Amino acid sequence: MIYIGNKPVMSYVLAVVTQFNNGFDDVVIKARGRAISRAVDTAEVVKNKFMPNVEIKDIKIGTEVIEGEGGDKANVSSMEITMKTKA
Amino acid sequence: MIYIGNKPVMSYVLAVVTQFNNGFDDVVIKARGRAISRAVDTAEVVKNKFMPNVEIKDIKIGTEVIEGEGGDKANVSSMEITMKTKA
Repeated sequence: MIYIGNKPVMSYVLAVVTQFNNGFDDVVIKARGRAISRAVDTAEVVKNKFMPNVEIKDIKIGTEVIEGEGGDKANVSSMEITMKTKA
Repeated sequence: MIYIGNKPVMSYVLAVVTQFNNGFDDVVIKARGRAISRAVDTAEVVKNKFMPNVEIKDIKIGTEVIEGEGGDKANVSSMEITMKTKA
């Protein structure tokens, strides 16, 4: 599982490629809020530039509740992209 | 088809709800680049707050080539979320 944060897209691309090269058949890319578009960038760059034998297996979206320090709650969108090596 | 741009999420939520209320069974939400996270927000708000009888049918991601004024090209990630009324 790779969590997408605020680093450059290439950091996450490298993390995903490394997971596949370590023998994993599936890698899940997870992001929340504004990082969601970076998760999509990561998946697309992995697939189009580095690993043509990898494809998108599943994409899920959801809503998570985040609790702030003062106990206030906010909803934030989340996304999970599962990538896998082609059979 | 609803294209997500830079307006507040609620503008797009209203557009999607209006499409369903006009009798469409499927509504496609489309976004590119940073607007992708707003597309996910739109789908989640429609589903969780306004239309419990609507669900996510399909999510696709891709890459589009954008050509600048000077002829320079750049890749941008894209996303399409298809929502449908439950059977």
